[in-house]
Amino acid sequence: MNMKAPRGTQDLLPGVTEKWQYVEEKWKDLCNRYNYKEIRTPIFEHTELFQRGVGDTTDIVQKEMYTFKDRGDRNITLRPEGTASVVRAFVENKIFGLPNQPTKLFYSGPMFRYERPQQGRMRQFVQFGVEALSSKDPAIDAEVISLAMGIYQELGLRSLKLVINSLGDGESRTNHRNALIRHFEPHKQELCSDCQVRLEKNPLRVLDCKKDREHPAMETAPSILEYLNEDSRAYFEEVKQHLDQMGIAYVVDKNLVRGLDYYNHTAFEIMSEAEGFGAITTLSGGGRYNGLVEDLGGPETPGIGFALSVERLLMALEAEGVELPIEEQLDCYFVSIGDKANKEAVRLTYELRKAGVQVDKDYQGKKPKAQFKAADRLQAKYVLVLGEDELDNNKINLKDMETGEQEEIAIDQLVDHLQQLLKGGK
Amino acid sequence: MNMKAPRGTQDLLPGVTEKWQYVEEKWKDLCNRYNYKEIRTPIFEHTELFQRGVGDTTDIVQKEMYTFKDRGDRNITLRPEGTASVVRAFVENKIFGLPNQPTKLFYSGPMFRYERPQQGRMRQFVQFGVEALSSKDPAIDAEVISLAMGIYQELGLRSLKLVINSLGDGESRTNHRNALIRHFEPHKQELCSDCQVRLEKNPLRVLDCKKDREHPAMETAPSILEYLNEDSRAYFEEVKQHLDQMGIAYVVDKNLVRGLDYYNHTAFEIMSEAEGFGAITTLSGGGRYNGLVEDLGGPETPGIGFALSVERLLMALEAEGVELPIEEQLDCYFVSIGDKANKEAVRLTYELRKAGVQVDKDYQGKKPKAQFKAADRLQAKYVLVLGEDELDNNKINLKDMETGEQEEIAIDQLVDHLQQLLKGGK
Repeated sequence: MNMKAPRGTQDLLPGVTEKWQYVEEKWKDLCNRYNYKEIRTPIFEHTELFQRGVGDTTDIVQKEMYTFKDRGDRNITLRPEGTASVVRAFVENKIFGLPNQPTKLFYSGPMFRYERPQQGRMRQFVQFGVEALSSKDPAIDAEVISLAMGIYQELGLRSLKLVINSLGDGESRTNHRNALIRHFEPHKQELCSDCQVRLEKNPLRVLDCKKDREHPAMETAPSILEYLNEDSRAYFEEVKQHLDQMGIAYVVDKNLVRGLDYYNHTAFEIMSEAEGFGAITTLSGGGRYNGLVEDLGGPETPGIGFALSVERLLMALEAEGVELPIEEQLDCYFVSIGDKANKEAVRLTYELRKAGVQVDKDYQGKKPKAQFKAADRLQAKYVLVLGEDELDNNKINLKDMETGEQEEIAIDQLVDHLQQLLKGGK
Repeated sequence: MNMKAPRGTQDLLPGVTEKWQYVEEKWKDLCNRYNYKEIRTPIFEHTELFQRGVGDTTDIVQKEMYTFKDRGDRNITLRPEGTASVVRAFVENKIFGLPNQPTKLFYSGPMFRYERPQQGRMRQFVQFGVEALSSKDPAIDAEVISLAMGIYQELGLRSLKLVINSLGDGESRTNHRNALIRHFEPHKQELCSDCQVRLEKNPLRVLDCKKDREHPAMETAPSILEYLNEDSRAYFEEVKQHLDQMGIAYVVDKNLVRGLDYYNHTAFEIMSEAEGFGAITTLSGGGRYNGLVEDLGGPETPGIGFALSVERLLMALEAEGVELPIEEQLDCYFVSIGDKANKEAVRLTYELRKAGVQVDKDYQGKKPKAQFKAADRLQAKYVLVLGEDELDNNKINLKDMETGEQEEIAIDQLVDHLQQLLKGGK
């Protein structure tokens, strides 16, 4: 029988989940300061949503989706990314009609892509992301980029590279598209079969091809930046000015096109430059997607967002040797000697927990010596000892494990006493 | 085109997600006090895991699973519950061999069952749960039950009913099983077709049948409590003693059998007794499952756990009129007048957020009056106003929206000043 986690998925166990909790807390805190509110969409959607919202010509839709029929014969797909679902929810729930615009949303959760698993690429992986809808102000592009950089910086990463580009508006993209076709057409037979299709359907994708990366025509391909019309150029300039004013360093890369079909205007990626980070250096990416809301049945609405991989964020922290400040100690461990004392320990443990104290005890019938050992292993700050003698006197022994000091406390004072001690110590 | 969330799933939007965040924080805090550590398992598993771990004769496995083939032709199922996955991870990662036993784990996340959607029953729903493995101490049964009650009590619910039962050990169950077969055999033809099968495969399931609920043989069916052997009876007595000592009220219901195959000894459910709560009153349930770890390929290991539905928890809070203490105000809103001031506002907003202040501004080119209106709608505690005049003097106007007081602040003092104000106010 196959009793292992499916290939490309993983269990996150104690010792690791505390790191996930920490970065999630930081993420929520950062989004709260930026006034982004949480949205949660379903794990799966109708397949059509991603075909339309991610793009029929993308690798994701063509090769990587977990698609199946449910018991009601619906075509269902585990979400491969977050933006299409958020935009679907924005349209379905008519959020575009609410008074407080722009709508600024954040999400975090698992995504699913059937790819060859490797370091930093799992079939189930977790993304944090934001979407800002109903604003076409270059300042919100800068806001989204600054938030993306912020999560890494506030966690302590230093070796970061921000790359930006503009993909322009519809007119600019059409002109560039035609130039790309003119440029690649003479070389069509030398390109891979995928690219031959891409050249007809979406020539921008050719620039992204991993197989044809070394073809000489790549280097000389016309850049979108040469085809930006005046509006698009002005928009991009303003985004850059805001970033300059904020003191956020960036590099313009005219070849940055992003893997999804729906982007226009601002596109960006953040890379780790930490030594030994591994083959995939991209930590996150995003961009503007004016038009996507309309494509998914909503009113004409501009939008911009980004998403990051939490797995790669944690890899980058490791590569840079950043230690997250995670509490590993246990407040209190209860050692009891004898059946009667153990019963009372069960009750007192419950009372302490109700009062806010973190406390644990033995549940395996261990001898006192082994209970003390467990307290050590769990790095207890305080150990409570209750034997028959103490119980008869309504007392309990409290040991401070750091100083070694001990004191006797009346049982009915225990909760107050420990609350005070732990409040002082924190 | 179908651009709606799939049937039985829902979007959680701002205004609602804050409640989810609040109960999740409470859950994590409570588990932390009880020294349960988080585990995260994949959203899907090999189908076989649930066939073995949940039970082939259960409705879940027979009728309700989201099962499909992945692109590698594996049989994959979206997890319908949490215990089988946690136990699989416990075995696969050899957690049973670690020094700190028992292993106390908590989880929270989406589960999937293809059922007819109704209030309190979604196809994608969220469970919180714990599993305590490697202890057969009745005190840990009481601990798990107290934790389950604790999450409801600490959130403010009052109309709760705790029901417990014992399903006994293997010997007791075999004797009871035989008694059930003897009891129902004469009525076999009067039972539903499902129950006729159940009577052969798992007669305990008959007691759980919704169709045959009214059959007179149900009332007179032999109870497991009459068939408990001495060990099982003593174990159940100890669990009840601990609950009594803790002051946790309960009712023993000899008909409580739980919907999953793997339970033995202690079983429990928590119900809402709030008026108008709806048809499904069960909030959560759990029990002991000694033997399950072995069934899933691990060493002989006792275990106990429970899971609750977050959707029903929130319904119960609503039914009892409990208001969660959720902060709805925005710390600060930035009103800027003119292009130059707006650019500076973008920069200052960024600086404030970096310094820990929650602040938002306009991103739609609104006139000052409309910006003030937005500040009102967002319930800003403070409004910052920056115009050309202020900018020329390196000053900014700060208005306390509660008192109406205004003051001029030097721009380079703004971050410190607001940090102080907000620290005092919290």
